[in-house]
Amino acid sequence: MRQSQTLIPTLKETPADAEIKSHQLLVRAGFIRQTASGVYSFLPMGNKVLKNVEKIVREEMEKAGAVEMLMPALQLSDLWKETGRWYTMGPELMRLNDRHEREFALGATHEEVVTSLIGDEVKSYKKLPLYVYQIQTKFRDEKRPRFGLLRGREFIMKDAYTFHTDQGSLDEAYQKMYQAYSNIFTRCGLNFRAVIADSGAMGGKDTHEFMVLSEIGEDTIAYSDTSDFAANIEMAPVHVTYEQSDEAALDLEMVDTPGYKTMVEVSEFLGLPLEQGIKSLLFKVDERFVLVLSRGDHEINDIKLKNALAANNVELASEHETKQLLNTEVGSIGPIDLPEDIEVIADHAVAVIRNGYCGANKNDKHYQNVNPDRDFKVSSYQDLRFIQEGDPSPDGQGKIKFARGIEVGHIFKLGQFYAEKLGAQYLNEQGKQETMTMGCYGIGVSRTLAAIVEQYHDDNGIKWPKEITPYHVHLIAVNPKNQEQQVLAENIYEQLQENNISVLFDDRKERPGVKFADSDLIGLPVRITVGKKAAEGYVECKLRENGEQEDLHVSELIDKINSLLK
Amino acid sequence: MRQSQTLIPTLKETPADAEIKSHQLLVRAGFIRQTASGVYSFLPMGNKVLKNVEKIVREEMEKAGAVEMLMPALQLSDLWKETGRWYTMGPELMRLNDRHEREFALGATHEEVVTSLIGDEVKSYKKLPLYVYQIQTKFRDEKRPRFGLLRGREFIMKDAYTFHTDQGSLDEAYQKMYQAYSNIFTRCGLNFRAVIADSGAMGGKDTHEFMVLSEIGEDTIAYSDTSDFAANIEMAPVHVTYEQSDEAALDLEMVDTPGYKTMVEVSEFLGLPLEQGIKSLLFKVDERFVLVLSRGDHEINDIKLKNALAANNVELASEHETKQLLNTEVGSIGPIDLPEDIEVIADHAVAVIRNGYCGANKNDKHYQNVNPDRDFKVSSYQDLRFIQEGDPSPDGQGKIKFARGIEVGHIFKLGQFYAEKLGAQYLNEQGKQETMTMGCYGIGVSRTLAAIVEQYHDDNGIKWPKEITPYHVHLIAVNPKNQEQQVLAENIYEQLQENNISVLFDDRKERPGVKFADSDLIGLPVRITVGKKAAEGYVECKLRENGEQEDLHVSELIDKINSLLK
Repeated sequence: MRQSQTLIPTLKETPADAEIKSHQLLVRAGFIRQTASGVYSFLPMGNKVLKNVEKIVREEMEKAGAVEMLMPALQLSDLWKETGRWYTMGPELMRLNDRHEREFALGATHEEVVTSLIGDEVKSYKKLPLYVYQIQTKFRDEKRPRFGLLRGREFIMKDAYTFHTDQGSLDEAYQKMYQAYSNIFTRCGLNFRAVIADSGAMGGKDTHEFMVLSEIGEDTIAYSDTSDFAANIEMAPVHVTYEQSDEAALDLEMVDTPGYKTMVEVSEFLGLPLEQGIKSLLFKVDERFVLVLSRGDHEINDIKLKNALAANNVELASEHETKQLLNTEVGSIGPIDLPEDIEVIADHAVAVIRNGYCGANKNDKHYQNVNPDRDFKVSSYQDLRFIQEGDPSPDGQGKIKFARGIEVGHIFKLGQFYAEKLGAQYLNEQGKQETMTMGCYGIGVSRTLAAIVEQYHDDNGIKWPKEITPYHVHLIAVNPKNQEQQVLAENIYEQLQENNISVLFDDRKERPGVKFADSDLIGLPVRITVGKKAAEGYVECKLRENGEQEDLHVSELIDKINSLLK
Repeated sequence: MRQSQTLIPTLKETPADAEIKSHQLLVRAGFIRQTASGVYSFLPMGNKVLKNVEKIVREEMEKAGAVEMLMPALQLSDLWKETGRWYTMGPELMRLNDRHEREFALGATHEEVVTSLIGDEVKSYKKLPLYVYQIQTKFRDEKRPRFGLLRGREFIMKDAYTFHTDQGSLDEAYQKMYQAYSNIFTRCGLNFRAVIADSGAMGGKDTHEFMVLSEIGEDTIAYSDTSDFAANIEMAPVHVTYEQSDEAALDLEMVDTPGYKTMVEVSEFLGLPLEQGIKSLLFKVDERFVLVLSRGDHEINDIKLKNALAANNVELASEHETKQLLNTEVGSIGPIDLPEDIEVIADHAVAVIRNGYCGANKNDKHYQNVNPDRDFKVSSYQDLRFIQEGDPSPDGQGKIKFARGIEVGHIFKLGQFYAEKLGAQYLNEQGKQETMTMGCYGIGVSRTLAAIVEQYHDDNGIKWPKEITPYHVHLIAVNPKNQEQQVLAENIYEQLQENNISVLFDDRKERPGVKFADSDLIGLPVRITVGKKAAEGYVECKLRENGEQEDLHVSELIDKINSLLK
């Protein structure tokens, strides 16, 4: 492609609204343009890299046995009402009425449509399992669209759905998709982790998020420094054997702690380590109240608490509720002398505390020399806290580290939630009606692009990985008015095309400095510069990845480039 | 692809709501399913043929020098207000508000977005001309969605836009696009015509519609039986030299025509040929009234009338207006004894009428022996009528025939309408601001699919052309429980794939009759049946196109298929 015939509007200045590198660079390098908040046009170069990611996704989906289809964006509200998401998704689901005042959603995802469709068309166990996918534009009216392609309101997604007669078949599909996703993100050149994630309220169980490691990620990942264990921090189990101290138990004692409320304040005031403190939080668990204890330096994880108590909903009790129940302020509550109907549960770490301290259920008072089970009753000890850096990895290998991650993929065993709501049934081998079991699997295609740029750039611009790059070679004629340079450049342009090496040929009448700066910004892997040595048949070959450069004779160029791109 | 692993839900019955063959067959063969009125899911086979059409479109667009991009469906209302189409497009333009109550249109087309984008990014004549295109989902809330993919509310379109400094450059782009469109529809196997079309109100001039010939088409095409002339019937000029009769002019005479009003009635009553009648129609032309004359067997063409009078708006006068002006009923008006302020214009054919007849501006009276220019004044004779079958072709070659056509493409010299409205300007070589000149070019991609099926089917199903077919070969094992058939079929399945011949392998446990019927319905070009002769290594090879079949030894299969698909 001749640069003069395409549209690559590079910018010298960083756009004021672009906070992160991928957003800045994709705009500056002329790949995308915003047309409304969270809504982007993909210019020719942006479209090319998008299509390259799509190609990888297609190939790996087909390998996993999935067939491509294409479902509509306009979706009748009826289906969304049947699953209840018409009501629960709120303003994120974009809605409109047609000319006959029929309500439609703009597809934010396609569980409703695909489940209804497959439920209508597949009536026998003989046609299961079935793996389908599509690559399509999705719409979500994000409250705060930002970070360019990372959180847009109109974006490209690959969504796949699998349909099964039984859990074993779903497990198999899940494994295949896990592998396909690993292949896809590996081919995209990404440093990522498959992370154990929260299945939320959707009834399913197993779920992994594919996270690209990046400082600007909005999620925290806990991962092992030696194994491939990785989990969303909310989902990482804590497997620690806490050692019991052999210190003698002292007598319980009430002390004044005037105005000291937080664990840190009380710890400092009493001159005792934070690890000896017992932190007490009053939770409202569905319709009852539970006092939850953790070590002073630990944090309670709501999701673990909810699972431990098999609750639908847990939230901290309000100040008002605390006062009513315990007649004290939040900063002074504790497990001793509690009303009998308040259950006490504690994280495992609390069990080994000797001569600790805790709130006394009296304002400005704490107990010292507190010993669990002697001074108060605990109904159960469980894993209730967030994992911390330095904790042993739950798989027994290495220690936990934290990283930030950008979610680019999500695989999910849906189970029967949607199939039940939408009546997706089939006849089993015995001729009996059964409900289908489902999995769903998403990849943010345009978001993956942004994640790639987050991991592949330097101060001068993007550095595209080989499978994603819009063109392999950037061919630059330093001075196209020079006859020798011009002829040689045209000759190389033809040779590259004949050898199926994709090439962007900067044939513009611009100063060399502008061409070189644009070339670094755009970030193709190989740059071939035709300059002063053109007369002798020599050109410069430079790698965007590491800046390495060498002079090459035109006769060895094709072989060299082919070996570089391998 | 194994048929057991994909979704091809064939139907025996024709869907009740499907009026035309392409709709019936695409549903019956399991290619598409409707999810809402005018909204379809492309099932795996439908998606494949769609992607094949898209591939052809991409290749020909690139050859024409166009670069692909991707613009959003969500479009701020502001742009549409600037061109006025927010108001003029009515309910066809789908609209919605986001969570902040900002108004959006769902892209029905992208002139507004692309003109604004290119106007922002291209500031110099050096970067023109520029050809861009996209393949994308469009939304139009049709009043009466019908005919399956032919008139949907959500559909796939290729839209291209070119930007120029001058008309000559636009003319060149238009020629390239004309050629690209001809290539595309030829590769799709379609019998089509490039038809001179009406440029409507959009300011442009040259425009062609690409029409696929089909009885179910909604447009009438006038084409030459010998040359490649073709025009929308509304746009075909009439080039006829009418011969003057040498009959002597007789005296004007008023006759009673009690209750006879139409030309046919009066002609029969008077016993005179229709060709001797002068038909008079009173038109309201902008703010004045004009009496328009044509020969009794001809029809006035509003578009020609509008152009002849350089009018913005022409419509037939109402009965009330006619009565008020001429004090007579519509069926009795005529050009003699008219009020002086009513201009009379006539089609060329009227000039040569001798001793004709016409309304007398008195109820139930007509004149006979009427001779134009002697009995009434005509301000001008022009080409005002619709062309008719049998007329000479306007290019002087052959005679006109009529055909019905499905519009699958449209190319259009937009001129400066959008660029002016949206301020798309550039600096010319002299550093002066100039307005860009534009062309736009659309192809209904999903509609093209339907048009292909209209031309490629028989009573048993679809017959896909080679470049569009979802797979080249349908491989059928008649009885997969038979070990020899099963092994041979699997072996052929592998061989075909190794030779890059795409194949759908019917490995289902269905009766042979079901498999053959489905195979005809689905319509792949080559069917290979592995049956009783499997033991000797023989299979049956049948062409969907013409039903030809022969037995082949497995050793000659690949060569044979390759030659068939060439």
